[in-house]
Amino acid sequence: MGQTPFEYRTVELSEEEIAEEREVYGGLAASLRRLNDVSLRTTVDADEVREVSALVDELAERLGKSAIEGSFGISFTRHGSVRGYGNAVVGLRNPIAVPLDIEWPEKGRTRAEFELNALYEGPPGMVHGGVAALVLDQVMGEAPASGGTPGMTGVLTLRYRRPTPLGHCSAEAWIDRRDGVKTIVKGVLRNAEGETTVEAEGVFILPRWAREKLAEQQPPRYE
Amino acid sequence: MGQTPFEYRTVELSEEEIAEEREVYGGLAASLRRLNDVSLRTTVDADEVREVSALVDELAERLGKSAIEGSFGISFTRHGSVRGYGNAVVGLRNPIAVPLDIEWPEKGRTRAEFELNALYEGPPGMVHGGVAALVLDQVMGEAPASGGTPGMTGVLTLRYRRPTPLGHCSAEAWIDRRDGVKTIVKGVLRNAEGETTVEAEGVFILPRWAREKLAEQQPPRYE
Repeated sequence: MGQTPFEYRTVELSEEEIAEEREVYGGLAASLRRLNDVSLRTTVDADEVREVSALVDELAERLGKSAIEGSFGISFTRHGSVRGYGNAVVGLRNPIAVPLDIEWPEKGRTRAEFELNALYEGPPGMVHGGVAALVLDQVMGEAPASGGTPGMTGVLTLRYRRPTPLGHCSAEAWIDRRDGVKTIVKGVLRNAEGETTVEAEGVFILPRWAREKLAEQQPPRYE
Repeated sequence: MGQTPFEYRTVELSEEEIAEEREVYGGLAASLRRLNDVSLRTTVDADEVREVSALVDELAERLGKSAIEGSFGISFTRHGSVRGYGNAVVGLRNPIAVPLDIEWPEKGRTRAEFELNALYEGPPGMVHGGVAALVLDQVMGEAPASGGTPGMTGVLTLRYRRPTPLGHCSAEAWIDRRDGVKTIVKGVLRNAEGETTVEAEGVFILPRWAREKLAEQQPPRYE
């Protein structure tokens, strides 16, 4: 049997508790996303910034009074909800996640519309090339799962056709073909005008340990 | 002449002003990085989280009283400093940037050591595959510049050899060969034990407008 490098936990939470958790902790992440953005663009004077920094430290201390060690992980409730709130791209509770709300319009196809603000900059006014990769990895990575053959990224190739301006963007991915345990996925990033700026191809592979694990429970649909 | 899709500004700041700017605004970003991390891991109760969220909103309002529109961009001082503080991977003022401190140990070679915490999670306990791409794009993208032939990402291929645990990581990149205006760069991501987890190859190309622009001024070394 293949090695299991990580664990999916099961937590005891009612649907109501999950809903409150989403509202409260999702709200904190949304507030932090706004603060992160304005902190990068602010031109208030140095004394004001120093005061705000000290208050930020106080808030961190309040939240740190009780906190899990390590990372958030992914857990399932007994009711079928998935808590992948820490995910760097789509995590509800992760303030550095865009976050993407990835739709599964049909089996084997995923898409998302989103705004990339100043926090995601590479060249002036443009989306960082690595951010394009970050977003596409997640959108493409969910396409195999949506088609019933989940997998982890094996190979990802990105072709940058033109710079992507910050602002409204969209991404789409679809299963191109399957080859044994490999699912080959194509994906695109588009700018606000709907023009393709980045083309990508990914090979997603399901490790043996995960094939056994997934026979027992549904694949994680990240939230 | 090729089209220039974006601008590098020049700002009038003394070296002392730059140093204070780095201390003050860099300090704010460092504080926010700690708050972002603990916000994801906190288990304090809902009422406390709601109070903290309201205070976060107040801080955003204070910083937003005076702020630039759009994105931070990249600017140069007349003394040769580069202000690329908004960069999503290395930006001093960007609270979602790790941030990476990329060294140029020799011409055509770059490397960085860094910690990836809970904010950069994909699979439970592991670095998000897209975050590996994000980091490698930046580390690899600076290798051509360090070798005197700066370029923008044209193609990036990532091969994921094994999961990368969150925690201490390092990345290294080097120019493999040149082919006309293309620079071919190889890169690796390594885990805390120094084992390679991701192998990458990138083709970096200098657009014509940038070749003309760079004849006038030094290439941006991001900070």
